Amino acid sequence: MKILVTGFEPFGGEAVNPSIETVNRLPDQIAGARIIRLEIPTVRGKSLQVIEEALRRHDPDVILCVGQAGGRAQISVERVGINVDDFSIPDNEGNQVTDQPVCPGGPDAYFVTVPIRAMAERIRARKIPAGISNTAGTFVCNHVTYGVCHMIATKYPGKRSGFIHIPFLPEQVAEKGGTSQAGAPSMSGEMMVEAMCAAIEAIVDTSQ
Amino acid sequence: MKILVTGFEPFGGEAVNPSIETVNRLPDQIAGARIIRLEIPTVRGKSLQVIEEALRRHDPDVILCVGQAGGRAQISVERVGINVDDFSIPDNEGNQVTDQPVCPGGPDAYFVTVPIRAMAERIRARKIPAGISNTAGTFVCNHVTYGVCHMIATKYPGKRSGFIHIPFLPEQVAEKGGTSQAGAPSMSGEMMVEAMCAAIEAIVDTSQ
Amino acid sequence: MKILVTGFEPFGGEAVNPSIETVNRLPDQIAGARIIRLEIPTVRGKSLQVIEEALRRHDPDVILCVGQAGGRAQISVERVGINVDDFSIPDNEGNQVTDQPVCPGGPDAYFVTVPIRAMAERIRARKIPAGISNTAGTFVCNHVTYGVCHMIATKYPGKRSGFIHIPFLPEQVAEKGGTSQAGAPSMSGEMMVEAMCAAIEAIVDTSQ
Amino acid sequence: MKILVTGFEPFGGEAVNPSIETVNRLPDQIAGARIIRLEIPTVRGKSLQVIEEALRRHDPDVILCVGQAGGRAQISVERVGINVDDFSIPDNEGNQVTDQPVCPGGPDAYFVTVPIRAMAERIRARKIPAGISNTAGTFVCNHVTYGVCHMIATKYPGKRSGFIHIPFLPEQVAEKGGTSQAGAPSMSGEMMVEAMCAAIEAIVDTSQ
Repeated sequence: MKILVTGFEPFGGEAVNPSIETVNRLPDQIAGARIIRLEIPTVRGKSLQVIEEALRRHDPDVILCVGQAGGRAQISVERVGINVDDFSIPDNEGNQVTDQPVCPGGPDAYFVTVPIRAMAERIRARKIPAGISNTAGTFVCNHVTYGVCHMIATKYPGKRSGFIHIPFLPEQVAEKGGTSQAGAPSMSGEMMVEAMCAAIEAIVDTSQ
Repeated sequence: MKILVTGFEPFGGEAVNPSIETVNRLPDQIAGARIIRLEIPTVRGKSLQVIEEALRRHDPDVILCVGQAGGRAQISVERVGINVDDFSIPDNEGNQVTDQPVCPGGPDAYFVTVPIRAMAERIRARKIPAGISNTAGTFVCNHVTYGVCHMIATKYPGKRSGFIHIPFLPEQVAEKGGTSQAGAPSMSGEMMVEAMCAAIEAIVDTSQ
Repeated sequence: MKILVTGFEPFGGEAVNPSIETVNRLPDQIAGARIIRLEIPTVRGKSLQVIEEALRRHDPDVILCVGQAGGRAQISVERVGINVDDFSIPDNEGNQVTDQPVCPGGPDAYFVTVPIRAMAERIRARKIPAGISNTAGTFVCNHVTYGVCHMIATKYPGKRSGFIHIPFLPEQVAEKGGTSQAGAPSMSGEMMVEAMCAAIEAIVDTSQ
Repeated sequence: MKILVTGFEPFGGEAVNPSIETVNRLPDQIAGARIIRLEIPTVRGKSLQVIEEALRRHDPDVILCVGQAGGRAQISVERVGINVDDFSIPDNEGNQVTDQPVCPGGPDAYFVTVPIRAMAERIRARKIPAGISNTAGTFVCNHVTYGVCHMIATKYPGKRSGFIHIPFLPEQVAEKGGTSQAGAPSMSGEMMVEAMCAAIEAIVDTSQ
């Protein structure tokens, strides 16, 4: 079994993106599955092209994308991608669109095809906060969630895909400084790597 | 130099309290200062008695108390303790009081006497989210913040004291489960220990 | 033009539900459209049955459902309903299901067919906080958002539908009391009625 | 009985400040007490000078200051002012200070001398969300909370003072627009006026 795991380059003025940091630290094998790591651009359209090239080259059984959800406190396993791009900030090539479809003519949404509940539970069993999320937003993360589902549904039958949102790294929040008593939530890089391994184990389990 | 560092026993239905977990993992020496670890009860009055006994036994230069602030995302170095007990939940012996003084006849508040800004900055320099907080609440954490300041001001001149609030541990949040996409923020135990070491280094630095 | 506007009975231990309170205060005519008010049960399945009966009796052009989103601060115009019931609390007849479809065999989601951006902008033009939301949750509100879209798509072509989430009423929050400095957000009943009128005006406008 | 009620001019890029808007709409008499309305600058030092001039001119029995707490959802009756100015943004004359005393040589804090619990309860009895707050921050609102207490304690014995934080007005949030489902909480101007009347009634009651 082969799993393509993608992470994004930094965006929104951040120096790092915890998603690619985490993906790059995954081992080559998890629960017997071969892990293929891929960095993708935080850009409308181009992110999907880079994934499709890797999909053709590696022919993975599962595509699992990871993205930063600044402000969320726990690992969130996304349930659904919707057919809309509605960017409140520009992506890394300056695209900022309002209420445009990810894939013109596609269905309104796709549920992901990885076992979201088992993944969240497996992560929590490792004592790491996790839950199911019902919105991946309308920026590039949702673009990829929906786009990969559509790609598979229309061209690569039999493959499965999913999306996991992860919090800021502590260093991202620490750099923001300030005296507010709350501040944005974060999660250590080690914990994020462990959470990803747990999620992937759940995927492998349900494939057997 | 001797520093008495206290942590609380669990309260509010939690199985663990990150404060005593963290305190128990501190090394015996930090930046040349001797660390004395102490567990204190989450109880009005009694918490201060246990601290005063340790204060007499060990004669520390600094008393640094640590408590859990569930819902906060970062290490918060408290600036001030106020002379009020206003408990929205009972303490561990069932005391639940409204608008009562911590120390009848005491001043309305005390600023802590450890270097709060240097402590927060030193923690952030280790890439750990931290900030100054202007309220320690009105439960046992504030009771201890104020009470120790008053104890020192009235009976043990020359000593210094402070209070640090720390977030939930990831395991506390993970056990709560749920499908909410947000969840409560948490911080890894390792990071909390490192943050405490950084804070104590800042205290030692400003003592020289 | 006829618009069926529905509100829910109270649920989750609340004495009132701002949605039916607001719906019951709407005038009989808004921007020339006839308004038909309907209370629906906060119950899986039955909520949709009651709507379908009213749909047959009144033959409205638009079905606009309203629900309470406790914790949200502004009027949120929902973009999408998803084909999942995942109830973290029981509905008013004790149903509590996990990851069940709203309509077995239906598509994963439907975008609503009212002009969400114009509705949100029209509300904000009245100086009332409003925005587009990308998740109606997975409780009865989403059940109805999805279910009505599916009903129309499969049986009542040409009709349109939408869903609006509104905050708590101030009285709901005031009764909770407490000394927290934050508390849950709320919105006055008058303002909610005005927001609904503005939203309906936007629907009527785009129908001409 | 005479009550001086102050509100601030706008700051932080806002076009209006709900505090002066609310104060200007208070009636001339509340529960038999004469109300004197005063706008004060959002400026360190100068805000207190303007209050002291009015205090000398009108000789009020109570000074009740009102300020905007953007992000808070309910009326918060402040318990305490602390002797620190720690501005995360500049005030309206460009002053931005770190950890400076409001009044050099003053005590660390003052509890306000109006009946905070009765005030919060009276507001809630009108079905308006309200609570006691234990921090007025460290910007000009706290500056005034502390400064007026100190002024009274040192020069005008027998007078009483307090501070109330109020949320954003709906129009302030509506103008920010955006598609976030949450947004900042707000409260209608009418409700804020009614809350202030209730708070003042509680003050008058406890003076008899």
